[in-house]
Amino acid sequence: MTTLTNIPLSVEWKDTHIRLLDQQKLPHETVFLELCTLQDVFDAILTLKVRGAPAIGITAAYGLALSAQGYESSSITDFQVRLKRDSDYLASSRPTAVNLFWALERLLSAFATASSVNEAKTILIHEAINIQMEDEATCREIGEHALSLFDKGDKVLTICNAGSIATARYGTALSPFYLAKERNFPLSVYACETRPVLQGARLTAWELQQAGVDVTLITDNMAAHTIQSKGINAIIVGADRITANGDTANKIGTFGLAILANALNIPFYVAAPLSTFDLSKETGREIIIEERGSEEVTYIGGQLVAPKGISVFNPAFDVTPNEYITAIITEKGIIKGDYRSKIKELFI
Amino acid sequence: MTTLTNIPLSVEWKDTHIRLLDQQKLPHETVFLELCTLQDVFDAILTLKVRGAPAIGITAAYGLALSAQGYESSSITDFQVRLKRDSDYLASSRPTAVNLFWALERLLSAFATASSVNEAKTILIHEAINIQMEDEATCREIGEHALSLFDKGDKVLTICNAGSIATARYGTALSPFYLAKERNFPLSVYACETRPVLQGARLTAWELQQAGVDVTLITDNMAAHTIQSKGINAIIVGADRITANGDTANKIGTFGLAILANALNIPFYVAAPLSTFDLSKETGREIIIEERGSEEVTYIGGQLVAPKGISVFNPAFDVTPNEYITAIITEKGIIKGDYRSKIKELFI
Repeated sequence: MTTLTNIPLSVEWKDTHIRLLDQQKLPHETVFLELCTLQDVFDAILTLKVRGAPAIGITAAYGLALSAQGYESSSITDFQVRLKRDSDYLASSRPTAVNLFWALERLLSAFATASSVNEAKTILIHEAINIQMEDEATCREIGEHALSLFDKGDKVLTICNAGSIATARYGTALSPFYLAKERNFPLSVYACETRPVLQGARLTAWELQQAGVDVTLITDNMAAHTIQSKGINAIIVGADRITANGDTANKIGTFGLAILANALNIPFYVAAPLSTFDLSKETGREIIIEERGSEEVTYIGGQLVAPKGISVFNPAFDVTPNEYITAIITEKGIIKGDYRSKIKELFI
Repeated sequence: MTTLTNIPLSVEWKDTHIRLLDQQKLPHETVFLELCTLQDVFDAILTLKVRGAPAIGITAAYGLALSAQGYESSSITDFQVRLKRDSDYLASSRPTAVNLFWALERLLSAFATASSVNEAKTILIHEAINIQMEDEATCREIGEHALSLFDKGDKVLTICNAGSIATARYGTALSPFYLAKERNFPLSVYACETRPVLQGARLTAWELQQAGVDVTLITDNMAAHTIQSKGINAIIVGADRITANGDTANKIGTFGLAILANALNIPFYVAAPLSTFDLSKETGREIIIEERGSEEVTYIGGQLVAPKGISVFNPAFDVTPNEYITAIITEKGIIKGDYRSKIKELFI
């Protein structure tokens, strides 16, 4: 099977440096940064040049491995102390990113059995590469399962960017589109622009365009008319968090799309890895929705588009109740129906 | 009853000139133009400084009346020829605006019985003022009926700008909010920004803010979450065209809101004058939806927000089937249920 070489990658290990796609410059410029120091990696995460939970975790892991290569100490204890300090520093770059802590923790544990500094250095690189390879495999599995739900010629609508550049490769909700492209399986994608931050217009439209996937951009309020007039066959979205009963928190606008899908009789799919599930929460009602500043809504590209002083409500996410979700697609397969028990089984 | 003096007016007759709100400068600057010649009026309509079908018609009527005042001829036949020429010229400023032709035609008919040029000049001014007064009365009636559907403290969501500045005064969907404000009847409004042209953010948020109405701006994809989390009680929208069975064409996004209202069990109201009904069309399926250029979606305020060369679908309107509409509010009252027969009755 051929693998498309033009699926944009967010982050790559290049032995002497980390090659990072500057997502802040998208979609106007495709700029790759060479991160050579711990400070470079810290700054890149802090200034949102890399986004998407898996992509941030992978970048941080490579950052720690890269930094370790420069330590000349022969004392493994010294080495450990330095690595812990580096790890704490990187972890402070984006204090709400769970994948960041998870990846750093995994690297710190990985070389616990190393008998020499050199061995530890090698283990760190391998472990960081493993994290990326595992995430890529997970995304590919999700894509395979998702693609099994589509027919040739289907038109599929999505929101935000659950894409290749947010993960190791392929993405979650966008993964089936890349696999379809690899196999000349015709699919068309409609991307909602995803106000206020326009991840759909800036990132999803861009990355699918790069890979030659047939993609059409719409504004968010065009979804209902587009579903009807273009004959959209399905909606697929990613997830920020899925609770024990299948309720799904995702980018604002997702819940509205789920309602449209139900009213207009098309399936609504959530694509997400097992790491997205939060079984400590029974239902979506326990999820606190982050509200962000009014400027995100009133300014676009630095330009004011609303009257000064206007009140704004700016929730970053919404929660789609499980009854609106036709199926949840994970790397371990597709679940539907009684989400509470099916999700429990996923984790056995 | 006191009438709020701070409801923004789009157009006012000032004897020597027409005072026109420059809607292109909103919401950043509140600039009033003094239109003193036929050419001024033509340019203002052409360059979209005035928008909204009723407001355009009123502006054109005043334009024709204003132009007539300058003609020194004592021959009523000469006068008629000149007026017809002026009218044709104004009509060419916005060839798709039905209200524009209707208003000009009404003025041309009005002075048919005049016995002198001076009498004709007076008739023209009175007729133009009548057009504005009638539209204001219509909007106020719509507002009265709409307000009867709301309870104190209700939170009401709207889209686009069916507002005071699109009409003589008050607007259609926004009219109940001004009447409520006049009576200290508490209502809160949530305005969808209305991509791609942002009429909600630029115009609705601005005009309600000017009048001191409690208004909160959201992006279009926040509607579902806002309805649920803020406890929205109803949705009210304007209409561009209503067919014989009640199907309603309105700004893109309206159909999606109607689906949300139905799914989340809140009423969905359409507010529109009788002049909006097009009984030559049986259902909304006969309405051709205008598609506009991709730049409206990919550029915001001159700034590119999407990748170059991306495919865009940009329908300007959508059609809400009658079964999603709880009631249609006209100046002659509220209709619901069997729209086909109720609409027929409206025109008896």
